[in-house]
Amino acid sequence: MKKAHNITLLGAGLIGTFYTMSIQGKRSRDRIRTVCAQTEGEAEAFARKWGIPQWTADMKKAVEDPETDIVIVGVPNYLHKKAVTLAARAGKPVLCTKPLARNAREALEILEVVDKAGVFAGYLEDLVYTPKTLKSIAAVKRGALGKVIWVRSRETHSGPHSAWFWDKKLAGGGAIVDLACHCIEIIRSFIGKDVRPAEVMCLADTMVHPIAAEDSAIALIRFENQAVGQFEVSWAFRGGMDLRDEVAGTEGTIWLNHFLRTGYEMFTAAGGKGYVAEKAEGETGWLFPVGDEVHELGYTNMFGDMFDALDANRQPEETFLDGYIVNAIMDSCYRSAKTRRWEPVRLERWYPGAKPAKAKAPKKAARGRYSLIKEERMPDGTLKQLLQDWKTGRVVQKVKKA
Amino acid sequence: MKKAHNITLLGAGLIGTFYTMSIQGKRSRDRIRTVCAQTEGEAEAFARKWGIPQWTADMKKAVEDPETDIVIVGVPNYLHKKAVTLAARAGKPVLCTKPLARNAREALEILEVVDKAGVFAGYLEDLVYTPKTLKSIAAVKRGALGKVIWVRSRETHSGPHSAWFWDKKLAGGGAIVDLACHCIEIIRSFIGKDVRPAEVMCLADTMVHPIAAEDSAIALIRFENQAVGQFEVSWAFRGGMDLRDEVAGTEGTIWLNHFLRTGYEMFTAAGGKGYVAEKAEGETGWLFPVGDEVHELGYTNMFGDMFDALDANRQPEETFLDGYIVNAIMDSCYRSAKTRRWEPVRLERWYPGAKPAKAKAPKKAARGRYSLIKEERMPDGTLKQLLQDWKTGRVVQKVKKA
Amino acid sequence: MKKAHNITLLGAGLIGTFYTMSIQGKRSRDRIRTVCAQTEGEAEAFARKWGIPQWTADMKKAVEDPETDIVIVGVPNYLHKKAVTLAARAGKPVLCTKPLARNAREALEILEVVDKAGVFAGYLEDLVYTPKTLKSIAAVKRGALGKVIWVRSRETHSGPHSAWFWDKKLAGGGAIVDLACHCIEIIRSFIGKDVRPAEVMCLADTMVHPIAAEDSAIALIRFENQAVGQFEVSWAFRGGMDLRDEVAGTEGTIWLNHFLRTGYEMFTAAGGKGYVAEKAEGETGWLFPVGDEVHELGYTNMFGDMFDALDANRQPEETFLDGYIVNAIMDSCYRSAKTRRWEPVRLERWYPGAKPAKAKAPKKAARGRYSLIKEERMPDGTLKQLLQDWKTGRVVQKVKKA
Amino acid sequence: MKKAHNITLLGAGLIGTFYTMSIQGKRSRDRIRTVCAQTEGEAEAFARKWGIPQWTADMKKAVEDPETDIVIVGVPNYLHKKAVTLAARAGKPVLCTKPLARNAREALEILEVVDKAGVFAGYLEDLVYTPKTLKSIAAVKRGALGKVIWVRSRETHSGPHSAWFWDKKLAGGGAIVDLACHCIEIIRSFIGKDVRPAEVMCLADTMVHPIAAEDSAIALIRFENQAVGQFEVSWAFRGGMDLRDEVAGTEGTIWLNHFLRTGYEMFTAAGGKGYVAEKAEGETGWLFPVGDEVHELGYTNMFGDMFDALDANRQPEETFLDGYIVNAIMDSCYRSAKTRRWEPVRLERWYPGAKPAKAKAPKKAARGRYSLIKEERMPDGTLKQLLQDWKTGRVVQKVKKA
Repeated sequence: MKKAHNITLLGAGLIGTFYTMSIQGKRSRDRIRTVCAQTEGEAEAFARKWGIPQWTADMKKAVEDPETDIVIVGVPNYLHKKAVTLAARAGKPVLCTKPLARNAREALEILEVVDKAGVFAGYLEDLVYTPKTLKSIAAVKRGALGKVIWVRSRETHSGPHSAWFWDKKLAGGGAIVDLACHCIEIIRSFIGKDVRPAEVMCLADTMVHPIAAEDSAIALIRFENQAVGQFEVSWAFRGGMDLRDEVAGTEGTIWLNHFLRTGYEMFTAAGGKGYVAEKAEGETGWLFPVGDEVHELGYTNMFGDMFDALDANRQPEETFLDGYIVNAIMDSCYRSAKTRRWEPVRLERWYPGAKPAKAKAPKKAARGRYSLIKEERMPDGTLKQLLQDWKTGRVVQKVKKA
Repeated sequence: MKKAHNITLLGAGLIGTFYTMSIQGKRSRDRIRTVCAQTEGEAEAFARKWGIPQWTADMKKAVEDPETDIVIVGVPNYLHKKAVTLAARAGKPVLCTKPLARNAREALEILEVVDKAGVFAGYLEDLVYTPKTLKSIAAVKRGALGKVIWVRSRETHSGPHSAWFWDKKLAGGGAIVDLACHCIEIIRSFIGKDVRPAEVMCLADTMVHPIAAEDSAIALIRFENQAVGQFEVSWAFRGGMDLRDEVAGTEGTIWLNHFLRTGYEMFTAAGGKGYVAEKAEGETGWLFPVGDEVHELGYTNMFGDMFDALDANRQPEETFLDGYIVNAIMDSCYRSAKTRRWEPVRLERWYPGAKPAKAKAPKKAARGRYSLIKEERMPDGTLKQLLQDWKTGRVVQKVKKA
Repeated sequence: MKKAHNITLLGAGLIGTFYTMSIQGKRSRDRIRTVCAQTEGEAEAFARKWGIPQWTADMKKAVEDPETDIVIVGVPNYLHKKAVTLAARAGKPVLCTKPLARNAREALEILEVVDKAGVFAGYLEDLVYTPKTLKSIAAVKRGALGKVIWVRSRETHSGPHSAWFWDKKLAGGGAIVDLACHCIEIIRSFIGKDVRPAEVMCLADTMVHPIAAEDSAIALIRFENQAVGQFEVSWAFRGGMDLRDEVAGTEGTIWLNHFLRTGYEMFTAAGGKGYVAEKAEGETGWLFPVGDEVHELGYTNMFGDMFDALDANRQPEETFLDGYIVNAIMDSCYRSAKTRRWEPVRLERWYPGAKPAKAKAPKKAARGRYSLIKEERMPDGTLKQLLQDWKTGRVVQKVKKA
Repeated sequence: MKKAHNITLLGAGLIGTFYTMSIQGKRSRDRIRTVCAQTEGEAEAFARKWGIPQWTADMKKAVEDPETDIVIVGVPNYLHKKAVTLAARAGKPVLCTKPLARNAREALEILEVVDKAGVFAGYLEDLVYTPKTLKSIAAVKRGALGKVIWVRSRETHSGPHSAWFWDKKLAGGGAIVDLACHCIEIIRSFIGKDVRPAEVMCLADTMVHPIAAEDSAIALIRFENQAVGQFEVSWAFRGGMDLRDEVAGTEGTIWLNHFLRTGYEMFTAAGGKGYVAEKAEGETGWLFPVGDEVHELGYTNMFGDMFDALDANRQPEETFLDGYIVNAIMDSCYRSAKTRRWEPVRLERWYPGAKPAKAKAPKKAARGRYSLIKEERMPDGTLKQLLQDWKTGRVVQKVKKA
């Protein structure tokens, strides 16, 4: 029988709300028992709204509540290290929201804190847990797409609600740190998490908002097996929240749309009657709500995996090591955006025992002088072949009689 | 604190599988404890697959398992009455799959059985519980669409898997009994469940399959407030499962697509690697899977409501009375398909205390001789009005100076 | 070499504009030479806008312009007979906009006028000429869908611009006469235009607008070969113009969306900068324009067929006989809406030489006692068959060893 | 009155077919009079199929046909220079297919040939002429999107049919030369064709096919006004032809899908009955045809503009100078793919009299110490502002009383 967990939640903002809805939703056995916010007042209001018996503004006290057995970190980025350290010292399993840290160095420190303490640690990257993403990853693993060669992940909206997100020092960056952390894990999950990211080319710019951080960015990530990951993030998108993933393989294609085109379309001239969807723009005209945001954004599956992993004494799908790798890739992106060159991804930690994946360039498949590019059966029954002649470098056409 | 329920599941077919996945899924506190199938062997295989501790082929024994506190009926239609009666006699809460019965008379008997026994009874109509449907119903209740005037609900696929579904006597009919029961509750939920269905016009036919029952049907349901419900069902649709609802109101429109176009698109030339989606056709080419079927088809929310209602000692959203009304409407459809006329919906039971909803015909809004059809500000600043002149019956145009 | 035509256009409203854009568009060889409007002023403004050399408010004079060789009728419904008669008397080919007349009797008179005069006559039903529709009809004729069993055609928007449309006497009816004429020809084109419509069941109602005519209707049309046509029309739709066709066949499915979801999506917070699309609602938020309305609504292909047919001395795809049949079906709809019964479609004229199409009911395919419903190869290699036993009326399951 | 043109068509492959269908389609006044193919046999077959009175395998003879007044170049890339030169020498207007040349140097030579000859020259870039693209560009020019900041254009399919396309020497490259030439003009048309492309970062690779040229590429193009263009091209896409454009502006968004999702969806189990769409994969299952390819891919509008421009003695929308700029950008892409750095776009020719567009970085909009990031009216009536403090680099929050 599965255990029922009692949880300390640090952070009572939007992410805390999503986490609470998810953990306490449906017929779940688990409950938030203590919530910690910046002020007592905020903490109490949140606790009363969600039926949480205890509240405080004291993070240490919240973590050390003897009746809770898991700590969830949902505070701003610059407080992750402090919060995780408190949990580790209290010897409690800790789950930390994305990104793990403001940069790879800080992430490594956080990783070492939990390693030394020997506590269970899960990285709360929700978007790899969306129902569509999980099912797609399974299909890819079964070979439905052949070899994955390119993954594009896009998250764009009009910018976050809280002040600290916009503050480069508190957040560690702008749209990349806020959004690309999602995209990177989505990309890695499709390409294979044990395939090493080799190098990165990134363009980051401040195109719309008067801020010091980037509000728009694109990056290309080359993996050791030749596959390419491409993320596109922006705080300057108009029209709601655009959340799409596209996977290209040698045998197939997957297109996922998580938000604006999910089979739910509403036109209203009345409008103004309440919450439509996260980051929706406008309350009249054509709107595109999402059925069950908490589920479709992956929160439900994510906490399911975390708690099940803890109960089963196994690692969750997303660990602090994954969080560290994400930060390392984002660091490379920032370096590349500055140097304007491809920058290597520097990883001081990697999966123990992972074997390097080799690129299988199509050229090597050629035997002898000619490689077959394509062949086609013609109406007259002959077989038309296009062949690359590696000696001359030319492409030749051969027609074989039926 | 919510209770954890132990359940007896009667039926180990496709619907039993969906129910089990839903009830035992995620971090749920509830568990199936006993499963009953047609044979011991089937029951055991099912139990082993889903970690259910007890199994049997004896329905009575399963119902009377002293360690279970809820009975779920997932057997073929012709066994609903028997199964519900066993549960009622055992004094246990009973949840019955759709349709409640093969016809209104049988449904009424089932309704009376639980009424007399005084047990909690829930009608397992999953499709009104899909995340999109729940959110849409809430939006409609908040007034986002003005007055709802027309609801269209469509469920079509290539036909069920089990033999009994195709057998008119065992099932009570064909595609209507199988599919329209869903559509009718979706329609009623959007129009208002306390708005009385007045009459029905139905076309039912056997167009493709060599069977005695209908494989295709459409019906129009007139409600007492003038609104129209329209269902379209078929076992002859090619391309997968088409599950769409469309709601038209005076102020807005809702379009829901639950299955074939939900933002998940996959092309595969490899294919053949496993389950894509319920009623999918083919395993290569463009496929349209659903992220989390059990959730998107409403099962998760449905059982959440049922168990929460039981715990809170309230009625669930869908009761046996609802199930009876659905059967009564379907009976009217079959009569209409035969008489080829509008047939009244005969209801021996209705919601106690419900007040009749009046039709508000637009004509009545007219004061005096003229009613305003539409008005438009013209480029030259004048105001152009189209007016219905009720005295002459003509439409006149008036232009007012700016 | 194709001829270049000089045209008299009767009517300078919205439809006249679409016709002119279409006829004079691109590299077309044909030109409007005379336009006739209700007043000289309107005629002149229209002529100057579109580079038409002559204008008048005198219909007879326009028709008799010695320099034009075709007359196009784009005037309100109640003037069709007068306009066609003038053209026929002048001995000129005449093309008449939809619907041909206000009712079947008037349509028959119009048909007889041109028959007697022996002039070429084309029925301007644009929506069977949309690029998607033409290609789909061709695919259906090639057998891509097997036997067509059900066609649904839907046209709904928020109501027409001009006063006469709303006037039951001038228009001949409401939304049915305005919109269902399109749907009926779309349905007939997919089922086969030589398949006789047998009977009709219709629900028509005034649900939103304060008018004497119907603003919403649905009808079912039974054809002699068992196929069903279903039209849905409304002047009460919110969100733009909904123009969809759905064709169901024994071997396939076609879904066409001509207006709101055509791969063109625009969000604008600026808006207010001009024409988006016919019957669009609003100028900000998410909008769904159509690339080239005149082409995608079929006008271009329609006039191409008309002029080419005239040049080749053949009948166009849509003739006045087609227009008469459409009116006859609509008359049956109005009768059915009143009697609330299935009404026969009364046709005084039909295609000469057309043979009756027989219904091929699936039951008749059965040989002997059993009909095969479906068969499935099971994982253990056995072949599972579902069979209808016509003697007992039951469905039985048979399993054959591999 | 518009002139009717007689045309010499060089090239009888797929592109020649599309050109012919487009030019001779509908009620067009223009005609191909002479066609030239690689062999007499091919030329004759093509001529007979399309009703072209003359054919030859001699390019010079075809160009010099005294009865034609326009030469259209639809031959492989390596023959463009030869063909254009022949037309220029014959003093005839010349229209050349895309790309103009294999590289910028060759394009410049071609440009100089027509300049010296003083003949009219049009660049046949069809995809900027699609109905959706033309309408979108007009909307952008009217300000519907505010300032355009990012344009993404994507063209991917499974690779071309003819051998020479795959031959790096004959084509000038691989997927970039074949496809990115389209994307670049689409990008430039949305950003403003007189906005100078400054530099380029490109990743090009051979990921699937055994060829010397690239089969997959992505590039970022920075324009002098800070806007970014992004093209994605591939010969390795599975599922048909993916043709999408996405435009992001400060006030809005445009999403165009030209091929796979245009409101035309067909499922067929019968299949195998003929041409579905250019580059479709498979003939059964879910297919996504395009209504009128020749029109929706822009050919019709393109030739309309070309011939109208010639008649009106004005420049067409797409000139050889545009073609040269496209080649120059592609050259920069190839350099960047090699050097793995941002490479400047080297332009020896530019629009005479064009003024440089300045970047308006949002930072500069700040007055004094604070810039407003966003402001929100709160439920209690206060106004919440997020402000960038440029002195400290921090983001601060201010709340103003109502």
